[in-house]
Amino acid sequence: MKVLDLTRVMAGPYCTMILGDLGADVIKIEREKTGDDTRSMGPFVNGESACFMMINRNKKSMTLDLKSEKGKNIFLELAKKADVIVENFRPGVVKKLGIDYETVKALNEGIIYCSISGYGQTGPYSNKGGYDIMAQGMSGLMSMTGEPNGHPVKVGISINDISAGVTAVYSIMAAFIQKLKSSRGQFIDVSLVESGLAWSVWESAGYFGEGIVPNRTGSRHRVSAPYQAYRTKGGYVLIGGANQRSWEKFCQKVVNRPEWIDDPKYKTPKDRIENVDDLERCIEEVLVKKTTQYWVDRLDDAGVPGGPIYTYDETLNDPHILERGMVQEFDHPVAGKLKTLGIPSKLSETPGKIRKPAPLLGQHTEEILREELLLSEEDIQQLLEENIISKEPLSIQK
Amino acid sequence: MKVLDLTRVMAGPYCTMILGDLGADVIKIEREKTGDDTRSMGPFVNGESACFMMINRNKKSMTLDLKSEKGKNIFLELAKKADVIVENFRPGVVKKLGIDYETVKALNEGIIYCSISGYGQTGPYSNKGGYDIMAQGMSGLMSMTGEPNGHPVKVGISINDISAGVTAVYSIMAAFIQKLKSSRGQFIDVSLVESGLAWSVWESAGYFGEGIVPNRTGSRHRVSAPYQAYRTKGGYVLIGGANQRSWEKFCQKVVNRPEWIDDPKYKTPKDRIENVDDLERCIEEVLVKKTTQYWVDRLDDAGVPGGPIYTYDETLNDPHILERGMVQEFDHPVAGKLKTLGIPSKLSETPGKIRKPAPLLGQHTEEILREELLLSEEDIQQLLEENIISKEPLSIQK
Repeated sequence: MKVLDLTRVMAGPYCTMILGDLGADVIKIEREKTGDDTRSMGPFVNGESACFMMINRNKKSMTLDLKSEKGKNIFLELAKKADVIVENFRPGVVKKLGIDYETVKALNEGIIYCSISGYGQTGPYSNKGGYDIMAQGMSGLMSMTGEPNGHPVKVGISINDISAGVTAVYSIMAAFIQKLKSSRGQFIDVSLVESGLAWSVWESAGYFGEGIVPNRTGSRHRVSAPYQAYRTKGGYVLIGGANQRSWEKFCQKVVNRPEWIDDPKYKTPKDRIENVDDLERCIEEVLVKKTTQYWVDRLDDAGVPGGPIYTYDETLNDPHILERGMVQEFDHPVAGKLKTLGIPSKLSETPGKIRKPAPLLGQHTEEILREELLLSEEDIQQLLEENIISKEPLSIQK
Repeated sequence: MKVLDLTRVMAGPYCTMILGDLGADVIKIEREKTGDDTRSMGPFVNGESACFMMINRNKKSMTLDLKSEKGKNIFLELAKKADVIVENFRPGVVKKLGIDYETVKALNEGIIYCSISGYGQTGPYSNKGGYDIMAQGMSGLMSMTGEPNGHPVKVGISINDISAGVTAVYSIMAAFIQKLKSSRGQFIDVSLVESGLAWSVWESAGYFGEGIVPNRTGSRHRVSAPYQAYRTKGGYVLIGGANQRSWEKFCQKVVNRPEWIDDPKYKTPKDRIENVDDLERCIEEVLVKKTTQYWVDRLDDAGVPGGPIYTYDETLNDPHILERGMVQEFDHPVAGKLKTLGIPSKLSETPGKIRKPAPLLGQHTEEILREELLLSEEDIQQLLEENIISKEPLSIQK
């Protein structure tokens, strides 16, 4: 799969990273001089953005002034040979640049052209600027997250950017499967708001089924208990002991309170939800006496689902996470040796792979022009002089 | 794509729903009598689970006692003709049942066999029971979500279940693309913990790059301001006015405080982050005087990214969401006409489609045995008598 990647910042680059991890050949096309905005986002390692390097591995970079006639024509020449184009400009921008789906399709019938935007390419809000936080707000996710009586909080990571990125990944793959069968391409329209909304299946089912509008519940489950974070000595522990068997094991083997099993306040799952505040108080009275690790061990021994709340340093140094290959290393020409996240989809025969580090700005411009478009050294020199491309490789030093 | 779906509850069923939405032929295999646990999860519409109906559309249902020799053999016969099998039992269960990857592969070299679990099929925690909340805790997501000084809160939706589901979707599609080229299948191992961790790209980049361990920030962005929820008269408004141009427009055209632009406390993005508490106070002093809708309109007029925090009733009745087809309707034989979420990946040529409502338990058992395995009426009668399958169709009335 050959991918031309016009995307910047997060949703689009996350999509093309996954395609690259799984074997696609990705050419990232960047603005000359500055490149993807993420290149100037800290923290930096030897002047290279750690965030940029994280989500742009397995890609080549070429600079191109898409606003110039020559730049546009170079893009269209590359588009003739591509399977997939991904862009996340505001709706309308690619049309203005003359590199929209209709234009490319006239040159390459098989092109799969995926546009990612805040609100989608059509509809009353399509022209609004949409960042992750607005999409979290509109898709309902924020209304579900936080303490019941506190301020609204956002999901800590940029969840709607990610949701749009992965929705784009599987949409592109679905279109590619069609293309392998029919040789025909298509246009794909993915938005941050809708991709997040599509994940709210329980919440939407409750609303459509009974008109229930769910509220935020802190760390609690809405219809199961105990299923939440409880305070321990110096921290918290997560317990998912909601089904009757887990609950009984929890009482007998974890907290040594067998009398709770027949307590009418906690007897059935329904009783426990009705008395959830009281249940929390009783459980915490016991749990605050020992550390999180103590309780995690006891939960494990009893076979009751439970676990810690890790911060990222704990997650990324946990022996299980390491054994599962979720921390890998690459060697970057400027930043040096650096750790990076591994690949969550473990395929036995064609596993994803970190084949190369994120590119320097324009690192592959000349190589691509030479090899893909067969341009001569004079042609390339001319493009450099006209500032259609930048001199390579360009490290954006901070 | 022919899919045999052994999954229950959320992560697996979400995966096979998307495959079905995009055109796959999905046979859901359920325990006789009770079926998928979600069938007994409220709310109910005419006795049918709204949650079950939401994520099991576009599937057929057959009952089968996999613990019986005959049931196992029927499964293996179906597996010979399948492209994909998806399961989310605890690691080891399919081996014990005699329907694991190695067994199926011996009968069907092209099988793509995807296992979804809490912690993955290998590693020290692989045998632990892993629900969504534990995966949120271990993958770091919870440590990022909530008020800085409050209790940890979870992401309101079951985000790690969903992350595993969509990671499985694109992994299966990647394997299917390989299969179309080579006719060979493979095993896929996806976990709730890793699929959520893989989304924490900025947070992991910060940790790997500089050893930064990010903390929860409520609704605020860690490195941009203003980018958060602010109180208004009776509610909140989201503002994403962090870049310099948006900030200046915000001061001039939204809140009419042009003097803030040159105020040394707010002059640069760095200044605004350093004085973020003070900035919040000043902005809220203005915003609390008018309603959310007033400020959303002013933000839109000024071209500054902003928006409301919707609850699900607001999201699912918003004119943009409706125009984008995110609310659809199906006709269920027992529940009647019911609304459901639309499809977030909009493909122009082969769009996803809600072709049929979620099945009743075992609704298609006899049809599948007859058409796929060419069993006679007597064979089917025999299986019914031995309780290998249930009499169809079975509505789990509550």
